[in-house]
Amino acid sequence: MSNALPAYRKLLKRTREIALLDSANSLLSWDKETYMPPRALDHRAGQMAYFSGQAHRLFTARKVGEWISDCEQHGFAPGSDEAANVREWRRSYDHKTKIPARLVEKFQRLCAHAREAWGEARQASNFKRFRPHLQKLMEMHLQFAELWGYTGSPYNAHLDQFEPGARAEDLRELFAQLRPEIVSILGPARERSAATPRSVLHGHYPVAAQQAFNREVAQALGFDFAAGRIDTTTHPFCSGLGPKDCRLTTRYNEADFTQSLYGIMHEAGHGLYDQGLPAEHYGTPLSNAVSLGLHESQSRLWENHVGRSETFWQHWHPIACRHFPELARLTPAQVTAAVNHVEPSFIRVEADQVTYDLHIILRFEIELKLIERQLAVADVPAYWNEQFEKSFGLKIAKDADGCLQDVHWSIGTMGYFPTYSLGNLNAAQLMQRAQTDCPALETELARGEYATLLGWLREKIHRHGMKHPPQELMRLATGAGTNPAAHLAALRKKYAVT
Amino acid sequence: MSNALPAYRKLLKRTREIALLDSANSLLSWDKETYMPPRALDHRAGQMAYFSGQAHRLFTARKVGEWISDCEQHGFAPGSDEAANVREWRRSYDHKTKIPARLVEKFQRLCAHAREAWGEARQASNFKRFRPHLQKLMEMHLQFAELWGYTGSPYNAHLDQFEPGARAEDLRELFAQLRPEIVSILGPARERSAATPRSVLHGHYPVAAQQAFNREVAQALGFDFAAGRIDTTTHPFCSGLGPKDCRLTTRYNEADFTQSLYGIMHEAGHGLYDQGLPAEHYGTPLSNAVSLGLHESQSRLWENHVGRSETFWQHWHPIACRHFPELARLTPAQVTAAVNHVEPSFIRVEADQVTYDLHIILRFEIELKLIERQLAVADVPAYWNEQFEKSFGLKIAKDADGCLQDVHWSIGTMGYFPTYSLGNLNAAQLMQRAQTDCPALETELARGEYATLLGWLREKIHRHGMKHPPQELMRLATGAGTNPAAHLAALRKKYAVT
Repeated sequence: MSNALPAYRKLLKRTREIALLDSANSLLSWDKETYMPPRALDHRAGQMAYFSGQAHRLFTARKVGEWISDCEQHGFAPGSDEAANVREWRRSYDHKTKIPARLVEKFQRLCAHAREAWGEARQASNFKRFRPHLQKLMEMHLQFAELWGYTGSPYNAHLDQFEPGARAEDLRELFAQLRPEIVSILGPARERSAATPRSVLHGHYPVAAQQAFNREVAQALGFDFAAGRIDTTTHPFCSGLGPKDCRLTTRYNEADFTQSLYGIMHEAGHGLYDQGLPAEHYGTPLSNAVSLGLHESQSRLWENHVGRSETFWQHWHPIACRHFPELARLTPAQVTAAVNHVEPSFIRVEADQVTYDLHIILRFEIELKLIERQLAVADVPAYWNEQFEKSFGLKIAKDADGCLQDVHWSIGTMGYFPTYSLGNLNAAQLMQRAQTDCPALETELARGEYATLLGWLREKIHRHGMKHPPQELMRLATGAGTNPAAHLAALRKKYAVT
Repeated sequence: MSNALPAYRKLLKRTREIALLDSANSLLSWDKETYMPPRALDHRAGQMAYFSGQAHRLFTARKVGEWISDCEQHGFAPGSDEAANVREWRRSYDHKTKIPARLVEKFQRLCAHAREAWGEARQASNFKRFRPHLQKLMEMHLQFAELWGYTGSPYNAHLDQFEPGARAEDLRELFAQLRPEIVSILGPARERSAATPRSVLHGHYPVAAQQAFNREVAQALGFDFAAGRIDTTTHPFCSGLGPKDCRLTTRYNEADFTQSLYGIMHEAGHGLYDQGLPAEHYGTPLSNAVSLGLHESQSRLWENHVGRSETFWQHWHPIACRHFPELARLTPAQVTAAVNHVEPSFIRVEADQVTYDLHIILRFEIELKLIERQLAVADVPAYWNEQFEKSFGLKIAKDADGCLQDVHWSIGTMGYFPTYSLGNLNAAQLMQRAQTDCPALETELARGEYATLLGWLREKIHRHGMKHPPQELMRLATGAGTNPAAHLAALRKKYAVT
């Protein structure tokens, strides 16, 4: 054990202390979204700012930089746990120290105002109200990219925060392969799914029954309720509050129980990853998720590849009927068809599995053009609407259905969107490989047994934390870096497109 | 504004920082009791120990002592806000710094073990299992008293933590007055209440209906649900998580809705005090409750003087019947009689208003004898049982019904019990004075209107925080220090004892 190196030991101690602060902040944030009374907001904001500040101060201290340098000079064995931690500490330290505190504060203020303006702009469906904020944000994004440093596109500096090692040029190529294939699937898939619209599911499904059913499903997938729970929020999320404390949230639509069900299967996918991270490394990068694209692969795998399969409904339909007697009017095949209905629509978060990535590709192109100064902020709505119509065949009548629909830009994230598509591709690729590696998988899934699949994901993905960079982890798990083949094959199979 | 004194300004800044840590710890603790999944306990304990340690370190720093001395030398005007804060900072600083860190840790470990042993001992109803722990705790209590310093009984050093300025000799005299009077009321009160036992209330009251009714009552009393909420726990409590964030909890018995109702009226009484503390002084003693005896007066006033009156049930009975249709079988007078039924019993927390203080007097006498070395720990059960039989006329068959029933000693509190009785006496005294000061009060209470009563408590008690020591505050509010007259008069009136 090379922990004998004093600088490494000090880093462990320091980052574990930071984890105590960060995890308290996670609880403060979770409570803010779930149970906090509204008038408590001011004090809560003060608490969260204080803990973030303390954690930032502890990590960006000059001596932390010196300890990291000491570790680098010591040179831990390539492939060792220590080398992985040091690599990630360095990435994070540079990321956090290269921006002067004054700019961080300016950016936070800007985001607070931008978030508010976005809300109003979206409400009024008027991009002009948000435009000056986005303009200022883009200027700072460029400034940050220069301070962080990058090769190729300045977009790479931002991408790297969410997907270490990802590059705009690679994504451009990936999406260039993906897009025409999706378009070729879309026509036939739409046609084949036209007979069973989502609305065949409509009925009355009481919240309490949905909660009971969702819990039964999440438990069957392997979510440990002794180390986690489900609450209700407007915007569903999964939050890890500590090594044995993972909180999922969802919202309920009493007319359609599948919305909260797939919400929970999605968040439980994130939660299973969280619960599978190695607790013994808690507080260090080795117990963090490797990237957003991998995190999203876990949620998409359970939601789409497990949950939207006919196999799933053959097992769960009779159980669902015990919770929702009126569901007996539909067959498992009809439920499956309804939850796989394909139809181009305006809103990304409501998109089906086929069109989803077209929404992402559009956002990626616009983000890239904005940061490379090939598109003016003022021209975003026109460009969005034009490109959207080309892809989806739908005319956008209002900004709220177009470039104002997503919160991301207003909260200062740039380069986040592509990780959703990486998640889709990774999910399919992992599922395909799990099926190859575990021949009995389909039989087990048909019995509603998920231990083999979860075990495979634990072994291949969860237990590694940030040990390997994301693409290396994908190669170790599946034999190849992220690529569209498995995703397209799964869609073609599902919609019987040859 | 004397805040121009640099030392005072530094103390304000420091104690507000500590309040951020303490209030985060309050949330961590609230969540632990309400929603935290069980396996999260280890990490949670680590977080809470870290934040307590940080807060302790920040407050006990040598320079904090210097700032306090600077303020004392400066000499703020007597009666000023600054003088009150400095007085309380000094009390707290001396309290926290006079015990070496090593002893604090030893005590915390001891308490952790004692708490566990108490749980087992109570389960087995065997005092011997708890005895060695209580023995060690008493030794440390004596050691702490010596380190803190005291005049008269070493018990005074402990009392002062919970009830600043309270003294064993005063309490002994107070209880000597109180006890024979209670005994003289007990006989007739028992007789008069014998016709309507608590069990006439028994029925089936669904939790959801109880929650709705309790909320309606708490809202009517003036509890601000935009700055607070109610959740469910095994052991009910009220916790202030910040200036606009007060969380009450209760537990439900579906056979008797009045248990959760009075639980909520009690905790809401604490909560109304919390919500009435001056938020502009948050983080300083001026926004803290003045003592446990005053805090408890607020809960007892709303629970007993408002909630257990016939006036209360005349207004609320028809509303309660909307929530619990089966309650229509009883009249308001019958409900009032049932919730005021008097019957000596073993368990303090289940005691009626007449016998309650006899439970406290017994505990006070034993604590005092223990710390003054007039009673050996080994002799506690025999002494308890003997004294209990004298007071209550009941023979104790097992320690769980006697000296093992309360958690307090096992968690290291000594001198806490008397504050419950001070709360009872203060509550009656305050209510009596409010009735004199506000002639329309009874008419308003009969209409279910509580604004005048709450306004009077806000004005006389809540808004002052720790500005005045508890007995001075009682004199300012009622014209006299805590005494048994109003409490006894209220009991005599309630049970028509002349």
